[in-house]
Amino acid sequence: MNLGVIVYMLGWIMKVEGLLMLVPVLTAAVYREKEGFCYLAVAALCVLLGLFFSRKKPDTSVFFAREGFVTVSLGWVLLSVFGCLPFMLSGEIPRFVDAMYEIVSGFTTTGSSVVSQVEDLSKATLMWRSFSHWIGGMGILVFILAVLPMAGDYNMHIMRAESPGPSVGKLVPKIRVTAKLLYTIYFVMTLVMIGLLLLGRMPLFDSLCMSFGAAGTGGFSCRNSGQADYTSYQQMVIAVFMLMFGVNFNVYYLIVGKKFKEAFHCEELRGYLAIVAAAVVLIAINVHSLFASWGLSFHEAFFQVSSIITTTGYASADFDKWPEFSKCILILLMFVGSCAGSTGGGMKVSRVMMAFKEAKKEISSVVHPRSVKVIKYEGKPLSHDMLRSLNAFIILYFFIFFLSVLVVSLDGFDFATSFSAVAANLNNIGPGISGVGPMSNFGGLSDLSKTVLIFDMLAGRLELFPLLVLLSPGTWKQTWSALGNRRGRKGNLR
Amino acid sequence: MNLGVIVYMLGWIMKVEGLLMLVPVLTAAVYREKEGFCYLAVAALCVLLGLFFSRKKPDTSVFFAREGFVTVSLGWVLLSVFGCLPFMLSGEIPRFVDAMYEIVSGFTTTGSSVVSQVEDLSKATLMWRSFSHWIGGMGILVFILAVLPMAGDYNMHIMRAESPGPSVGKLVPKIRVTAKLLYTIYFVMTLVMIGLLLLGRMPLFDSLCMSFGAAGTGGFSCRNSGQADYTSYQQMVIAVFMLMFGVNFNVYYLIVGKKFKEAFHCEELRGYLAIVAAAVVLIAINVHSLFASWGLSFHEAFFQVSSIITTTGYASADFDKWPEFSKCILILLMFVGSCAGSTGGGMKVSRVMMAFKEAKKEISSVVHPRSVKVIKYEGKPLSHDMLRSLNAFIILYFFIFFLSVLVVSLDGFDFATSFSAVAANLNNIGPGISGVGPMSNFGGLSDLSKTVLIFDMLAGRLELFPLLVLLSPGTWKQTWSALGNRRGRKGNLR
Repeated sequence: MNLGVIVYMLGWIMKVEGLLMLVPVLTAAVYREKEGFCYLAVAALCVLLGLFFSRKKPDTSVFFAREGFVTVSLGWVLLSVFGCLPFMLSGEIPRFVDAMYEIVSGFTTTGSSVVSQVEDLSKATLMWRSFSHWIGGMGILVFILAVLPMAGDYNMHIMRAESPGPSVGKLVPKIRVTAKLLYTIYFVMTLVMIGLLLLGRMPLFDSLCMSFGAAGTGGFSCRNSGQADYTSYQQMVIAVFMLMFGVNFNVYYLIVGKKFKEAFHCEELRGYLAIVAAAVVLIAINVHSLFASWGLSFHEAFFQVSSIITTTGYASADFDKWPEFSKCILILLMFVGSCAGSTGGGMKVSRVMMAFKEAKKEISSVVHPRSVKVIKYEGKPLSHDMLRSLNAFIILYFFIFFLSVLVVSLDGFDFATSFSAVAANLNNIGPGISGVGPMSNFGGLSDLSKTVLIFDMLAGRLELFPLLVLLSPGTWKQTWSALGNRRGRKGNLR
Repeated sequence: MNLGVIVYMLGWIMKVEGLLMLVPVLTAAVYREKEGFCYLAVAALCVLLGLFFSRKKPDTSVFFAREGFVTVSLGWVLLSVFGCLPFMLSGEIPRFVDAMYEIVSGFTTTGSSVVSQVEDLSKATLMWRSFSHWIGGMGILVFILAVLPMAGDYNMHIMRAESPGPSVGKLVPKIRVTAKLLYTIYFVMTLVMIGLLLLGRMPLFDSLCMSFGAAGTGGFSCRNSGQADYTSYQQMVIAVFMLMFGVNFNVYYLIVGKKFKEAFHCEELRGYLAIVAAAVVLIAINVHSLFASWGLSFHEAFFQVSSIITTTGYASADFDKWPEFSKCILILLMFVGSCAGSTGGGMKVSRVMMAFKEAKKEISSVVHPRSVKVIKYEGKPLSHDMLRSLNAFIILYFFIFFLSVLVVSLDGFDFATSFSAVAANLNNIGPGISGVGPMSNFGGLSDLSKTVLIFDMLAGRLELFPLLVLLSPGTWKQTWSALGNRRGRKGNLR
């Protein structure tokens, strides 16, 4: 285990978090809130710790996938532990489990909250919550890779561990340039969204929070009413941008490079849009009687579908009151999730499509026993390794899912609540149905359930493997024995 | 497509079904019920049709896996269509969808019913319902293979298509002898159970029905109160035998051959018993406050766990009223199911164990990138083909599951009802929770939902592939073109 690189990267994470925390500090300064001092203190602590741990540039020559996984998962845990300190210091969310739940929900772009009246929170805290979505959406380590000049295998492994989707699309051969490109597209799209919301006369504060949340496919609101009180223009801007942030960023890179044909030939994009269209039509028909006009029911259906499939979790209506069929479609969409290489969560459209092709091939091999078929995806044959890791992902996903439901059910809520609470957290969506519906919150769950859901959110955002590798005894056995040997040798030398 | 063998086998199924229908005819004779004539008429029709279709012994030389799948799935559909006729003729279940639901639930050993007051049914119908569990449990085609002297590849393919589990354990090299052995063990165990129930002073009729249901892991009751009114001795006999019929029959073959060591080294058996033990303890603790003593809560927990994991579905208590945690464990057990090579349903313990090993290996290959590991199960390495078909099974399983929930949710019941109705039918269990709990029935669902659930029951019993191959267009394209060619050639000859 290359501990040098791991500690160095963790140090960088601390430094960057400290700097990013200046955003809520600034917000507090504008609104003259005393909570700003809590953020300033934690920011200073982060920068100091960060400088200490990243003082020595390590040797990056030996760095395997497992080191990438460990760096990313430890990094996210650290990010969250320090990120939740201001909530506790300011007394706004005093208990550790609650504060941790809230910030993990922020960074993992889940957006489920333990706070029932968000308007009681300070503007600084509201901003930090929403801004954490923006940081977590594209990934803090991808950001560091974009700014950190360092050579070695390590960057590919870290990028792969933090980016969502079964494979990492390197836009250009150099990881650092790829990371920069991704963040540039992300930044510009967020700016455009803020601009369009301001044009629609949304207050600046709301525009920023809504855009950070949509860009990261998060879902925290800055109003008690969620997104219900915004105008239909504002809701439509939010809905369209949510959908856009759920698209594989490769597509935007192709569009920027004017390769329109390639961009629209992307199999995942087509699948994604087809699913969205089908879901919107089915739900609009199903909820038609609840709304005054067809226009309105399509509007609400589109907003909700866009919000759920991208795993954002904004709610313009209390869909918990919609008919069971519509709720069921939304629950299904929770599992599908957005495109790989987007900021969204869930299993990802590409995984679902690949799995479907795999199953179809298996049936066809029974029907035509002599034919040899290769599964193609995006025009390329799927490698054996890719399929193996896809299958392991699906299996682990359902294992974690069912075990989590079991633990949460100890709280004694009805089945829909336990089931959708886990679905909403593992897929990084936010609201579920029933007891954790869009107009409820997660504050009523026990600490045990919250802890399991914190794990689920992190596992969902990092796509299972990093966390499981971190927790696997095998990962640490070698490290301890290596450390032991080194000490032993030193002892002999003395 | 070897249509000759398929038609011949379907003819045999008709003949055997006609003969088996003499059991309810006899019951009607004993109780002097007029419904017996309906059974007699249908039995005669079946035998006549069967004799007609099986009049010509076909050429069995060309027979692939797909033919096996088509034979088995068509066979089961035919079996059910004729099996439900007496229900309609006697007027006891007059509508086709309901009658079909009831008999498919019988043959697939599901045991969920559309009838609310079973004691209003004639004894003949009660007997036919329970007896259909016994026929479906081990499989009608396995029975035919045991009695039909015919050589060729066909028997292996048919056996594989009808027997539950990821692989068919040939007990002995000859399929026919294996089929005979299986039915002998099955028959003897059923007889022993009937004897023990009679010893406990259960009436003969109840003893027969309960034993047929437990042997096939079915679940139809012959009393409105389910199994709640039986004595604790009777309940314990039922619970222990349910558990025993959920064990891989290979184990019994080994025990009969006095290979005790091998029998108890069976990995699946150990996994199965470990899951049962864990579930019983957890539930007994969880429901303790509902019962007068620890003994009683363990008794009820054991009965329910044994009933659900073996996918029988008998209920000694209304577990829908149990705490959410216990219900959640039972729902999890529904998915796990019994052992491969038993008469039970579900995904099978072996599939769950293999999937777990596969996922574990994938994590370990990240931790130790240079090591090459082989997944072993029951002491043997798992072949690539086996894993491929396991993965396709899991994927298809969840696809069918979620799509079915979506359709059933159109009926507007709560999520727990829709979810558990599909879980209970796809896994061939019987009762679910909430609206389809052990003290409710499936009569209130729409025809669309019932149709989907009929498909799910058949798909669950035949383990997905046979039905999907039957419905795959590729299966029939070649057949039609072959038939067309033959006709064309005949035309040219004239």
